[in-house]
Amino acid sequence: MQDANLYGAVRAAALMASGALSSEQLVLACLERIHARDPDVLAWAHLDLALALAEARERDRERSAGRVRGLLHGLPIGVKDIIDTATLPTEYGTPIYRGHRPAADAACVVAAREQGAVVLGKTVSTELANRHPAITRNPHDLAHTPGGSSSGSAAAVADGMVPLAFATQTGGSLVRPAAYCGVAGYKPTYNSINGAGIKLLAPSLDTVGVYGRDVPDAALFAAALIGFPTPSFDRLPAAPRIAIYRTPQWSLAEPSMMSAFDAAPARLQAAGATVSELALPAAMDAIIDASNVVNDYETRRSLAYERVHHLDRLSPTLGGKLVQAGRWTREQYVDALRIVDDCRRMLEDGLRGVDVLVTPSAEGEAPRGLENVGKTAFHQMWTMLHVPSVAVPVFTGPAGLPMGVQVVAARGDDVRALQAAHWIQQVLRG
Amino acid sequence: MQDANLYGAVRAAALMASGALSSEQLVLACLERIHARDPDVLAWAHLDLALALAEARERDRERSAGRVRGLLHGLPIGVKDIIDTATLPTEYGTPIYRGHRPAADAACVVAAREQGAVVLGKTVSTELANRHPAITRNPHDLAHTPGGSSSGSAAAVADGMVPLAFATQTGGSLVRPAAYCGVAGYKPTYNSINGAGIKLLAPSLDTVGVYGRDVPDAALFAAALIGFPTPSFDRLPAAPRIAIYRTPQWSLAEPSMMSAFDAAPARLQAAGATVSELALPAAMDAIIDASNVVNDYETRRSLAYERVHHLDRLSPTLGGKLVQAGRWTREQYVDALRIVDDCRRMLEDGLRGVDVLVTPSAEGEAPRGLENVGKTAFHQMWTMLHVPSVAVPVFTGPAGLPMGVQVVAARGDDVRALQAAHWIQQVLRG
Repeated sequence: MQDANLYGAVRAAALMASGALSSEQLVLACLERIHARDPDVLAWAHLDLALALAEARERDRERSAGRVRGLLHGLPIGVKDIIDTATLPTEYGTPIYRGHRPAADAACVVAAREQGAVVLGKTVSTELANRHPAITRNPHDLAHTPGGSSSGSAAAVADGMVPLAFATQTGGSLVRPAAYCGVAGYKPTYNSINGAGIKLLAPSLDTVGVYGRDVPDAALFAAALIGFPTPSFDRLPAAPRIAIYRTPQWSLAEPSMMSAFDAAPARLQAAGATVSELALPAAMDAIIDASNVVNDYETRRSLAYERVHHLDRLSPTLGGKLVQAGRWTREQYVDALRIVDDCRRMLEDGLRGVDVLVTPSAEGEAPRGLENVGKTAFHQMWTMLHVPSVAVPVFTGPAGLPMGVQVVAARGDDVRALQAAHWIQQVLRG
Repeated sequence: MQDANLYGAVRAAALMASGALSSEQLVLACLERIHARDPDVLAWAHLDLALALAEARERDRERSAGRVRGLLHGLPIGVKDIIDTATLPTEYGTPIYRGHRPAADAACVVAAREQGAVVLGKTVSTELANRHPAITRNPHDLAHTPGGSSSGSAAAVADGMVPLAFATQTGGSLVRPAAYCGVAGYKPTYNSINGAGIKLLAPSLDTVGVYGRDVPDAALFAAALIGFPTPSFDRLPAAPRIAIYRTPQWSLAEPSMMSAFDAAPARLQAAGATVSELALPAAMDAIIDASNVVNDYETRRSLAYERVHHLDRLSPTLGGKLVQAGRWTREQYVDALRIVDDCRRMLEDGLRGVDVLVTPSAEGEAPRGLENVGKTAFHQMWTMLHVPSVAVPVFTGPAGLPMGVQVVAARGDDVRALQAAHWIQQVLRG
């Protein structure tokens, strides 16, 4: 069981069900990996080994007694540190909340434990899940950023420290770290996983999602939390109808991403997919500015306490953002929401007749250096449009780091997005 | 200044601006009223007199120095106890959180203080803002319920203990206590006042709003928080175009409400309003069941921690609701959300050509007894539809208690709803 930490959630769950693996063994393998690697990767904000092992042993006892809680029984998970836990500190990535211990677990943590998950620990978030970088490094190359804000969750899953982890996205906080670290990142349709007990940023955008080593792992975690049937990935569904979409921000992509992405349609078509270019009205481009206004306006208000009482303890990046966001008037915000409504309808129309669209999951591979968490260009619009998005690594960049695509479907078409993302990954990874 | 507590927010603000009243005097008058009456009314969960007076004196010093923070400078407010305060305990109406002291103030509390408000104390909420009654009594007749869940806020404003208070609504938690206690209750368009730091119940429904002694008072508070210009109420706007709407649940209204309400259209017409009956498609009736499913489904998930870890400390009412809500499947929930989307469009169409609709604000006057917070029949649909609603007392019921109407406008038409509500109240109150 030396490498049980590398099994992935689906395989580990099957081995535990058959009695070939215990939750304790799995958790121990994860903790060993963390012990070996986390001094370099710095993915974990809080760990309580005794607590995690006690939870694992309790899951093992329950299984022996025939009481399997659910799909996640015995599987360790990482919990991003902007998600409340009563059993571990929750510092939201800022010294303002140093040592903070919430009175209750967040609803998603309770839901995961109800399904049998073992909380391994809290993963590093950037400061208040915003853009000021955290200490975490990209496990593929420690000199590169893992992306943010779900930095620790993505790095921990990518490095085999834990098979599953929670992430959240307001701008690109889930998909970008998935892209940079090369894990499967699944941002469900808005408001699919309950957000109670999670630090609120922009309520029209905030979305809880998950990471796994591959799409079936992420889908297992999400199915357990959201309550849809675990999608089948054994047989590929009918080859999907795919629309290629370069977004209004295509010019921000790196040359390596552009050339890899441009070669993808032919490969998907050769594998049997029906491939088209997504044509959206020019008015759709307004989603970029509109979603920035909504994010700024709402985050300024949600973080009022931190801005008013602790501005000096915020990074200049975040403090500056919150102060400058005061320039947006209520009228501009309401106008932006109206534009978003229109864009949601345009996307719905544009997706008629196709199963999913495929678009870059980031501008390229993870930038070198830890001082910047990367561009949000390829993410914000999908958060604002409330549609499901699945990021999968499929290319390798010039520095040898993963690059990927996002598979996006219409609101509520989550299972279709997951199945298509898995199919597309198989094809493009070759 | 003996009766400064009865002035109302607009008048008190004007007197403070002119130097005829200090915030300290106003706060002292409120505290005196609380001292005299709260042993009977039981509207307050937590008070810290020294803190409130210190805040008031600081506001007075700021004013002397020419630093007026905003529209609420020096005005005392009550804060419903499901809204976090770092300076006062926050117990969410349940012994589960006895003595709980949040790490931060909720965003709406910070916003109120930024505008100069003085936090007088925390007002009683029913258990986790649900239907199990709290200790608060109706100040008009202590043997009657004040309604819930914003019981303490409504009772405190109605009794002249504080001119303004925060309320929240998921089912009918803001409008019902306003109706029963006879205060002006304003539930803004969904997501107008930021919800960070407020106990989450059903994220698709939860709405923060305010109480005042009359509509201009409530409008002043809300304008300061939301950032729209303070509406003018001096000259009545053009007589409004009003649609009368009895809702699919008209048969649940008391005979006294039915007869008072049925006489209203002729009186409004006589005063100059254009009055019509709102005709909505029969499919609109599905909003009732759909919003119940959304409320149940989401609240069960948001309160997962309390249900899983403290079921024995929940009332049978709430515990039962949370357990039974497990019967709703994800498919039923998604279907309900789809119905809600359709109903929003139907209402939008139905409101074309009218300014507002008028509908009962509750089934009748506050029921006798404290064991039940009243029916939610006339509220839930307006919460779910995300439209602004202003409750005003206009009738007197058979037991001598206030009864009222709700004035509802299209999403975003908040100022129109407020101005029309004030006009309608003047007409119907005679």
